[in-house]
Amino acid sequence: MEFTAQQIADFLGGEVQGDPTVAVSNFSKIEDGKPGTLSFLSNPKYSQYIYESKASIVLVNNDFIADKSINATLIRVKDAYGSLAKLMTLVDQTKNKKTGISSLAFISESAKVGENCFIAPFVYIGENVEIGDNSLIYSNCNIEDGAKIGNDTKLFSGVTVYNGCVIGNNCTLHSGSVIGSDGFGFAPNASGSYDKIPQMGNVVLEDDVEIGANTIVDRATLGSTIIRKGVKIDNLVQIAHNVEVGENTVIAAQTGISGSTKLGKRCILAGQVGVAGHLQIADGTIFGAQTGVPNSVKTPNQTLQGYPAIPVMAFHKSAIVHKNLPELQKLIYSMQKKIEELEKKIN
Amino acid sequence: MEFTAQQIADFLGGEVQGDPTVAVSNFSKIEDGKPGTLSFLSNPKYSQYIYESKASIVLVNNDFIADKSINATLIRVKDAYGSLAKLMTLVDQTKNKKTGISSLAFISESAKVGENCFIAPFVYIGENVEIGDNSLIYSNCNIEDGAKIGNDTKLFSGVTVYNGCVIGNNCTLHSGSVIGSDGFGFAPNASGSYDKIPQMGNVVLEDDVEIGANTIVDRATLGSTIIRKGVKIDNLVQIAHNVEVGENTVIAAQTGISGSTKLGKRCILAGQVGVAGHLQIADGTIFGAQTGVPNSVKTPNQTLQGYPAIPVMAFHKSAIVHKNLPELQKLIYSMQKKIEELEKKIN
Amino acid sequence: MEFTAQQIADFLGGEVQGDPTVAVSNFSKIEDGKPGTLSFLSNPKYSQYIYESKASIVLVNNDFIADKSINATLIRVKDAYGSLAKLMTLVDQTKNKKTGISSLAFISESAKVGENCFIAPFVYIGENVEIGDNSLIYSNCNIEDGAKIGNDTKLFSGVTVYNGCVIGNNCTLHSGSVIGSDGFGFAPNASGSYDKIPQMGNVVLEDDVEIGANTIVDRATLGSTIIRKGVKIDNLVQIAHNVEVGENTVIAAQTGISGSTKLGKRCILAGQVGVAGHLQIADGTIFGAQTGVPNSVKTPNQTLQGYPAIPVMAFHKSAIVHKNLPELQKLIYSMQKKIEELEKKIN
Repeated sequence: MEFTAQQIADFLGGEVQGDPTVAVSNFSKIEDGKPGTLSFLSNPKYSQYIYESKASIVLVNNDFIADKSINATLIRVKDAYGSLAKLMTLVDQTKNKKTGISSLAFISESAKVGENCFIAPFVYIGENVEIGDNSLIYSNCNIEDGAKIGNDTKLFSGVTVYNGCVIGNNCTLHSGSVIGSDGFGFAPNASGSYDKIPQMGNVVLEDDVEIGANTIVDRATLGSTIIRKGVKIDNLVQIAHNVEVGENTVIAAQTGISGSTKLGKRCILAGQVGVAGHLQIADGTIFGAQTGVPNSVKTPNQTLQGYPAIPVMAFHKSAIVHKNLPELQKLIYSMQKKIEELEKKIN
Repeated sequence: MEFTAQQIADFLGGEVQGDPTVAVSNFSKIEDGKPGTLSFLSNPKYSQYIYESKASIVLVNNDFIADKSINATLIRVKDAYGSLAKLMTLVDQTKNKKTGISSLAFISESAKVGENCFIAPFVYIGENVEIGDNSLIYSNCNIEDGAKIGNDTKLFSGVTVYNGCVIGNNCTLHSGSVIGSDGFGFAPNASGSYDKIPQMGNVVLEDDVEIGANTIVDRATLGSTIIRKGVKIDNLVQIAHNVEVGENTVIAAQTGISGSTKLGKRCILAGQVGVAGHLQIADGTIFGAQTGVPNSVKTPNQTLQGYPAIPVMAFHKSAIVHKNLPELQKLIYSMQKKIEELEKKIN
Repeated sequence: MEFTAQQIADFLGGEVQGDPTVAVSNFSKIEDGKPGTLSFLSNPKYSQYIYESKASIVLVNNDFIADKSINATLIRVKDAYGSLAKLMTLVDQTKNKKTGISSLAFISESAKVGENCFIAPFVYIGENVEIGDNSLIYSNCNIEDGAKIGNDTKLFSGVTVYNGCVIGNNCTLHSGSVIGSDGFGFAPNASGSYDKIPQMGNVVLEDDVEIGANTIVDRATLGSTIIRKGVKIDNLVQIAHNVEVGENTVIAAQTGISGSTKLGKRCILAGQVGVAGHLQIADGTIFGAQTGVPNSVKTPNQTLQGYPAIPVMAFHKSAIVHKNLPELQKLIYSMQKKIEELEKKIN
């Protein structure tokens, strides 16, 4: 299917700059744009590519100012990245969705599967499991006894949902993610070894949650580990038992949240962040990459980085001095000598 | 099933403070305790909740001192968390265990499966595999040729045990964990690429080991990667080839141990710790979260943190000065000027 | 099969020192070498073991100088570790390879499987998948629609390859690795939640790539995430969307590369390194363990460490001063006082 620049601009509420009749049938990255494709420029790091791009149409932000002439037709929009998302979603929705229940899946007699679902071969569905309508369960997934999965939810291959866990509507779980494994709870005993604390709670994922590949959400010891509506979690993330992640919080890859910590709403955690247990993190907190968080954050909407997490400007200032430490130490020792000399002269 | 405060106190060797006849049938967290449930207070951070908790019974440590009146009946015990573990284990053991061998599993003719095991659909059991009695293998697990699994061991869905690896008795392996993948061994060659070093050893997990979800234990190049009795490993941990983890050592999520390192007994590694290769870590060492360990630790029972790992008190002191570095640098430069001025005046 | 020291030396182009007729039939580690086995000494940390080793033959580097007498016959070679690799590969190649297509696998009618492949039970192969000759697909792997897998490639149990991804020849993917999960792309919307950016690209693994257990390579938003020829990636690594990893680069466990970053050729990334997005890393760059990389690296062949990554010598110097910071701060304050006293006396 082809669309003209004018059609796309009308759909997005944008403005055409160039030939409104030029048509595209696919997307491309700006650095390797091809004729007949639509590209986008959002991150200014890539501005250089727009002048040579062979893409027929480029979505740009309203405030984009060209330094040189551009061959492509531009469509100016409020938010080029968001507009790209809209267009791609439109195209994505036209793709055929898989349906049908494979005879090679194992579905317990007591399980209920809604209408219009896809259940692939080698999926295991335990006793009393409930799956809503229009959900897709790819091959080799495991949904243990009593788990519930909402409508329009997608489990890619090899996902495991332990017994009694609850997944909302319109969630996406990527391959190898594990929902509801035991929290890491052990009590030291007199013999020097550890007794396991049975983990009797569950995990609740509310609606519109995305869970990355091989990410883990552990079940609660008691009660529920809760991932609120709209949370997006990247790959290889660890969410420990009894954690609560607030609405629309975003967590990048390889970050870990320790037991019983509560993250606020609309937080952003970059990659490889570690948050200690039993903390409260205020709404809108942003943690930079590799940050370590040993204490609660009470003031909302701060950007913090480093170990221990401090305001990001202070972190960068300290990092600059840190690099300079050997020179600074030399200076201090030379000053120390000078002071001694001064003292000798005066005293 | 209901139990009275007196019955529970007798079982735990604790002391009732309040109504010994009050009965409970379930557990709850102290912050959302409900009537008819038993809760516990172990971490002092949660003390505030005991005064409003609606739990009927609360387990507390002997030394707990109430600031205000408490509605719940208390049971005073030596170790509230450990006592909770005992009670939950008791309840957990009354649950029906799965048994039976699914006709949808693949079990090689040469494999031996013990008595009273559960083998779920889509489990693959290779040639000459041996599985002991009372073990549970959940759906979509892979047990490759020649692997051995002991008695009373549980593999949750999607675990892979590579060929020739040995899992002891009473072990628990969570979903997606991988035992025996190749160690990361490559030798650079003349052409600038790498030759793979075949990894010909295996992994041995002794008894009572717990392995978290999506955790990896790589097989040895030669010999065995060994996880000793009673070791507890959390999710997303990396144990490289030829590592040895000493008895009753505990490793939290996202920690990595590099090749050929030997961890002592009763060590505790917090989350996101990294230990370099070919090191020896003394018994009882504790590494704080995100610590980096480039050198062996020879003195036992130290608590270390930071990169490179130093005693935790020193780490915290340095961290405080680190935050202050920009101010300190300003001070140094102002002192430098003053010294110059003093020198001018005197010389 | 037994080989004599002379036969092995001839094969390796090495030189026998000792009894050329002594024969071995297996390998051992130097610290627990047994008669009838061949061991090796490459890392000088293990030199102490050669004097007591009971191995019959030990491979050593040409420049190895013995401090004491050695019982074993030595074979001197240019590169003991590389020579070991050669020998082990030889032995490894004599092992029987699995072949045959299980009737318990699901293979779409439109899929093409080459000659001499092994397809295990419970493997799912989607529509229009193509698999080359001599490839091995272990149990519970998932190869989604339109994916392509080359010749002589091995997927261990539980690997998932998402739709449309391309795996080259002679690749090895370890258990639980995921190729082609969605990149982590979301655009904030006016309601305070996030819209998903459909991830329409794919992943391309060129030839001779090794991917560790539970490692993730996300698909590109547009275009391809590319892992070039000869790249070796360890366990639990995160490769984000649109990343490109240059030829023969090696990435150790738990490292993460953020979106759209391009790593050069022959780089070495140690464990738990984090590289930010949209960066360019020059050929031959080495990042030490736990390094954080917020900026591009333009000069090739540097060794960098710390956050932010700086040359490793400077990193170590700063680390030493860092440990000393509390003492240094005390010194500065005492100097400050002395300066004040001097000023009083002079002014």
